[in-house]
Amino acid sequence: MSHPFDDLLTPAAEIAWRIGRAQAAMAARQLDALFIVQNADLYYFAGTVQDGLLAIPAGGDPVFLVRRAPERARKESPLACVVPVESPRAYPSLLASHGMGALRRVGVELDVLPAALHLRQARAFPGVEFVDASDAIRRVRSVKRPWEVEQMRQAARIQDRMVRRLCEVVKPGMTELDLAIEMEAEGRRAGHQGLVRFRRFNQDVFIGHFLAGENAARPAFIDAPTGGLGLGPALGNGVSRRPIGADEPILFDYNACFNGYHSDQTRTLVLGTLPDEMVRAYAACREILEAAEAWLRPGADPGELYARCVALAGRRGYAGVFMGHGAAQVPYVGHGVGVEMDEVPVLAPNGGAPLEAGMTIAVEPKIVFPERGMVGVEDVFVVGEREAMPINVTPRDLIVL
Amino acid sequence: MSHPFDDLLTPAAEIAWRIGRAQAAMAARQLDALFIVQNADLYYFAGTVQDGLLAIPAGGDPVFLVRRAPERARKESPLACVVPVESPRAYPSLLASHGMGALRRVGVELDVLPAALHLRQARAFPGVEFVDASDAIRRVRSVKRPWEVEQMRQAARIQDRMVRRLCEVVKPGMTELDLAIEMEAEGRRAGHQGLVRFRRFNQDVFIGHFLAGENAARPAFIDAPTGGLGLGPALGNGVSRRPIGADEPILFDYNACFNGYHSDQTRTLVLGTLPDEMVRAYAACREILEAAEAWLRPGADPGELYARCVALAGRRGYAGVFMGHGAAQVPYVGHGVGVEMDEVPVLAPNGGAPLEAGMTIAVEPKIVFPERGMVGVEDVFVVGEREAMPINVTPRDLIVL
Repeated sequence: MSHPFDDLLTPAAEIAWRIGRAQAAMAARQLDALFIVQNADLYYFAGTVQDGLLAIPAGGDPVFLVRRAPERARKESPLACVVPVESPRAYPSLLASHGMGALRRVGVELDVLPAALHLRQARAFPGVEFVDASDAIRRVRSVKRPWEVEQMRQAARIQDRMVRRLCEVVKPGMTELDLAIEMEAEGRRAGHQGLVRFRRFNQDVFIGHFLAGENAARPAFIDAPTGGLGLGPALGNGVSRRPIGADEPILFDYNACFNGYHSDQTRTLVLGTLPDEMVRAYAACREILEAAEAWLRPGADPGELYARCVALAGRRGYAGVFMGHGAAQVPYVGHGVGVEMDEVPVLAPNGGAPLEAGMTIAVEPKIVFPERGMVGVEDVFVVGEREAMPINVTPRDLIVL
Repeated sequence: MSHPFDDLLTPAAEIAWRIGRAQAAMAARQLDALFIVQNADLYYFAGTVQDGLLAIPAGGDPVFLVRRAPERARKESPLACVVPVESPRAYPSLLASHGMGALRRVGVELDVLPAALHLRQARAFPGVEFVDASDAIRRVRSVKRPWEVEQMRQAARIQDRMVRRLCEVVKPGMTELDLAIEMEAEGRRAGHQGLVRFRRFNQDVFIGHFLAGENAARPAFIDAPTGGLGLGPALGNGVSRRPIGADEPILFDYNACFNGYHSDQTRTLVLGTLPDEMVRAYAACREILEAAEAWLRPGADPGELYARCVALAGRRGYAGVFMGHGAAQVPYVGHGVGVEMDEVPVLAPNGGAPLEAGMTIAVEPKIVFPERGMVGVEDVFVVGEREAMPINVTPRDLIVL
């Protein structure tokens, strides 16, 4: 069984760098180890997704206990120590035999770990204090190196193909679903893995949002400025069977994922002519996006960046309709993107520590016209020492067909 | 904003019946209330997915606290009491003002609730003992009434259209991914919601498995007899870019979801001629499926059913290769299906309480030829007093093209 995707494997030097950053974060928090079990975190720290436990000690090499499937872990992960295990009951003794027998304080992913698993783990390791290391893990992951940025650029190229396919086929009378199907198929042909990962609980989104007219302005359960009717009450967000019409705003935030790395991008399209007030609102969104692009620098404060975007939207007359309206307004204007769609930093009030070079941040100014529609634009930027560079390649203009 | 999917809404009588069953389960466990927050459970008990907390008291009417979006909850849910809420901090006082101020013992979904949310909830309700009600909730959900079965039949019709599309387009040299794209697009045209829900942590599967030759026999991290290479190490299961060939087994377990309800189905296809030993193995799988169909009766013991299937596989000579092989063998032959793909009961050793009429159970006998491929067949049955009826409509024969 050869491995046909050697070119997709995470290089050993990337994993080593990440483990180094994790160990620095552990030292600052007096942790003896990190226990990693969630898929996105496993992919980040081990280079593969397996059913098992990755234990990263405060110093030295990680131990990857793999229940299913150890032979694949060995092929896909650059980590030297992959240990097959039959049951989680063997975790404590196996870790002890690999030098982790005297753990006192261990960081875990409490934000995503199911409570029952956490409680079982606490019983299996009596005497160990388990503390939430979610913030530390997410902060480690927030800074990307060129290899990661290149995976995201590849995702952005896939997303651009999806947009071009949309522009080829779109006609009045087609439904949101018809067009989503075309974009999904084109994305998959280009290497889209299909599944997009959100970290936050219950964020059930299928690929993304493709929303015409008032459907974009309809709030849904997810934590996003766009909502959408969806196909039914079981998944009440995203595409519906609404036909698209001429002269109305069509907003699409339809995501791509390549080799586990996401691209996030929003564009607005009109068949015919958009009302002047919506054209002006789109121009304001683009102005905010490009202002933020100039403000994204190492040392910048995420909360201050958010406040500046909101203030600019306010000066252009969009105070009550920026990033949603009424109770459905969301209190952010951007977020990190990487192996999950909803990474840190968040450009929001109290958004946390200053930005660092290498962070990849989606900025997504959107303006609502209640019961009529939404316009907006979104790109993901890599924060650099001198400038922020977009990973996206689709032109930022309003698409008029 | 009218609601174009009135015909998809869960009838009030269904919700009332489910709440009644939940309250019976609560009485047996001395629970004062159930707190429901996870999407699939919310959809089941409220008829809609929203960001909030559904509190079901031991007696009387549920209170649905909805942060996002209460106006949609009111349209989609038959529950009378939908209360808008700005923040989870208001949950305790709002519940108190709706007669739930003196809760002592509350059941929660510890199997899916993130640990951090659980700990926050425990702090917000000091003095309340939170206990795991996952098993009770899953058991309540396991018995379906005709309305639910009809949603699943609709999903099965979609799945049949996906198979027919596959048979129309399949040619040697196409890749697994090429064919998956065709099935996905056909499914979506027929009303597939895209997203399929698994309850178990980390079960990242995009739609299902479409696997040719040895790729089906390659184990992956997920808890399934099939594995598959996937498109990369970030999602190492399911379809790959492997071209399909003549005279090899092509096994597909490509799921459908309609209105939140799933259909699970496996078929095996060959272009040309399958080796005799694989034809015999397919016949054995079908024999086991149809034997199980006859054994699925109210009162039957799931563990006993599993043992009978394993014994029959053994008598036909497939002891070591039934449901996977070696360490990748899975210890079950079937599972419940409904608003999640992986429901109870599980046909496994110690599979729990006896079967009841109305349960919907996928039976999926599969036989591995290590490094060569897998054959198998799967249908979902509704357990009835006299007989079990399949929801699936695709013929069970080996598909020879």
